[in-house]
Amino acid sequence: MTVRALDLLHAADVVVHDRLAPRAALARARPDALLIDVGKVPGHHAVPQGRINALIVEHAVAGRFVVRLKGGDPYLFGRGGEEVEACRAAGVPVEVVPGVSSAFAVPAAAGIPVTHRGLSRSVTVLTGHDELDRARLEALVTLGGTIVVLMGVARAAALAGGLLAAGMSPDLPVAVVERGWTDGQRTTRARLAGLADALRDRHVTSPAVIVIGAVAALADDPTAAIDLAVTDLAVTDLADRCAAACEVAG
Amino acid sequence: MTVRALDLLHAADVVVHDRLAPRAALARARPDALLIDVGKVPGHHAVPQGRINALIVEHAVAGRFVVRLKGGDPYLFGRGGEEVEACRAAGVPVEVVPGVSSAFAVPAAAGIPVTHRGLSRSVTVLTGHDELDRARLEALVTLGGTIVVLMGVARAAALAGGLLAAGMSPDLPVAVVERGWTDGQRTTRARLAGLADALRDRHVTSPAVIVIGAVAALADDPTAAIDLAVTDLAVTDLADRCAAACEVAG
Repeated sequence: MTVRALDLLHAADVVVHDRLAPRAALARARPDALLIDVGKVPGHHAVPQGRINALIVEHAVAGRFVVRLKGGDPYLFGRGGEEVEACRAAGVPVEVVPGVSSAFAVPAAAGIPVTHRGLSRSVTVLTGHDELDRARLEALVTLGGTIVVLMGVARAAALAGGLLAAGMSPDLPVAVVERGWTDGQRTTRARLAGLADALRDRHVTSPAVIVIGAVAALADDPTAAIDLAVTDLAVTDLADRCAAACEVAG
Repeated sequence: MTVRALDLLHAADVVVHDRLAPRAALARARPDALLIDVGKVPGHHAVPQGRINALIVEHAVAGRFVVRLKGGDPYLFGRGGEEVEACRAAGVPVEVVPGVSSAFAVPAAAGIPVTHRGLSRSVTVLTGHDELDRARLEALVTLGGTIVVLMGVARAAALAGGLLAAGMSPDLPVAVVERGWTDGQRTTRARLAGLADALRDRHVTSPAVIVIGAVAALADDPTAAIDLAVTDLAVTDLADRCAAACEVAG
């Protein structure tokens, strides 16, 4: 989490957050701030995007300082663009604070650089909801760069099958990083041809980031010491720093 | 800048930084810390990567706490992977702190979400150093997602020509964001067919991020109020927060 985001969170009258918002971050909001969880999934139905847009605008127009807290980067498959448009249409000024994107940070947590000299010259990020046709699958094969798939566990087997049919090497390394940057982080490695079996054998579930490409072979051993819940740490660190500054000042 | 990065910077005995490291961030290092600028370009020759790796390892092996401070994300065309490998080979433990990538954050500063429902289903990030052949250019056209080009000003005209020859629409929107998140930020908008002229007419120079795709049309007016130097702000905010905490504690 960036210092800027933490600062705005502390100033917010209303925090509209989603399911992936870390509790430690929410704990930094003011005690009197109104926290609205728009990611809860009663009966697996999330709050519709239109309702989220309306909520943000309603509170802002009423004169409240609203923070829309999103996991990852608001502008990468985060629908942040739609929320900003809704605010602008209502005359509500908006500041966008870019975040650390799970597309790059979750692979990094598992030791995978999404590009690496000699292994990958580009990275393409897409989601598992995107049903690629044969032409786009072949384009990904030709492009030859790293492919990062967000929200892709459910359709991973179909995607692997499509890429293989489009000519991708069955030996291409794949890494699936579940619950990145949490205590429960786990990396599953496979070859593209063995991805479906690996996902089933290891009972891989969402949330997970899938990395397809030569760089996936750089993944650390799943038992490596990646046990930091960074978002928690960040908040704790700030408290420590403030305490230290108080000692110096006092 | 993330809170975690700031915290490590404050703890560092040695900071190995590059040309894009904000001065306000470096000012947070300890007064007795050794700052090594490996991005200086006397005669346009940067410090070779092998020498940077060796510097980091030498100081670490001598028992010093080394921070390698990079602009943007260390694992996206940042050669961070090579530095980590050098450290591991020398038995030096490493923690990678993901950053906010310029590939997504600089477009965001100009009001451009790199993906947007109905406009873009994927984003491909590459660099201007990458001389794409005809097959890869056609693959980008077929893929149909947003293209983000880092370090691409010098070869932008050639890239645009290649994409046009590969069948990309001459009317495709392009936005070039110079000096993102600084007071000197400026956005130049064009159609793909007019990019070369626009770059020349506006004397566009590095550093700049180029966004090619329908989302580029969402760019704010260049005169819009994007005047925040976020890295500076972040550091100031932290100082303010600490001061506020001191008042409460005192």
